[in-house]
Amino acid sequence: MKRHLNCILSLVLIFFAACNNNQKREDVKRQNALVFPQGERITNENFTGTAYLQGLIDADSLNSIFVGNVTFEPGARSKWHLHPSGQIILVTDGVGYYQEKGQPKKVLRKGDVIKCPPNIPHWHGASSDTAFVQVAITSRESGPTVWLEAVSDEEYHGEVTVN
Amino acid sequence: MKRHLNCILSLVLIFFAACNNNQKREDVKRQNALVFPQGERITNENFTGTAYLQGLIDADSLNSIFVGNVTFEPGARSKWHLHPSGQIILVTDGVGYYQEKGQPKKVLRKGDVIKCPPNIPHWHGASSDTAFVQVAITSRESGPTVWLEAVSDEEYHGEVTVN
Repeated sequence: MKRHLNCILSLVLIFFAACNNNQKREDVKRQNALVFPQGERITNENFTGTAYLQGLIDADSLNSIFVGNVTFEPGARSKWHLHPSGQIILVTDGVGYYQEKGQPKKVLRKGDVIKCPPNIPHWHGASSDTAFVQVAITSRESGPTVWLEAVSDEEYHGEVTVN
Repeated sequence: MKRHLNCILSLVLIFFAACNNNQKREDVKRQNALVFPQGERITNENFTGTAYLQGLIDADSLNSIFVGNVTFEPGARSKWHLHPSGQIILVTDGVGYYQEKGQPKKVLRKGDVIKCPPNIPHWHGASSDTAFVQVAITSRESGPTVWLEAVSDEEYHGEVTVN
């Protein structure tokens, strides 16, 4: 009888050890899921909420393209702004929004890409309950980003384009 | 005695069911790991081995940048080539190589970025035993890619930069 109880106890311990091991593997996978580092918290006034930037490629005299990885925590977003040479956004994780002035906002998910035309005011950011990670590709050839007003709560929670 | 054996059998079944469930979750995660679709197999003569291209952003009159997702199967690589406006490479998965003419090849892994200067002959591709996935950002402002000779096996297996 005691031997059987020991056997059952051993099996229960093995079961929980195996589950714990799988949990650890999943935690490691989650950490490995993001392609680029989160980078540093953005402390300037061009963003509402908590956002992070990891610069990947700096523009230089031979190459006017800046590439950066931006992570928005839920509810975080940029102010309205425009790029004189336009911008390309590659979505690598999460759920976020992109809106051009006068248009309904679009919902963005992993794998989506956006080509934002030159000089079109727009904003981007996370959805209210899920973080959002994007790679932004910005040519500075025709000049730097022009920052505009903050995105109001009414705009942030506004109508979504039906895909 | 029989009750104990049934109990042990039940625990063993629960254990294997739990393991199987974790395996299924891991399979789904692996499928979801890639950010962009693999796209179509590249059939032109500028690549050795099996490679795939998914165009993400086309160049147009307002934006001269082409963005594409390239997947190289193990051993696959481009020919030597150059870009008149340079190229940026973002590594999203796997293990690959990048080499500029006259330099040792570099090993590239997920999260690495390369800024290839204008008019520098180079090649990129997968390592011999692991596939390689990259996002290529190429301005066509100063002209299209110039394709050169194939990468020989000696070059492909040549010296690696010590990081």
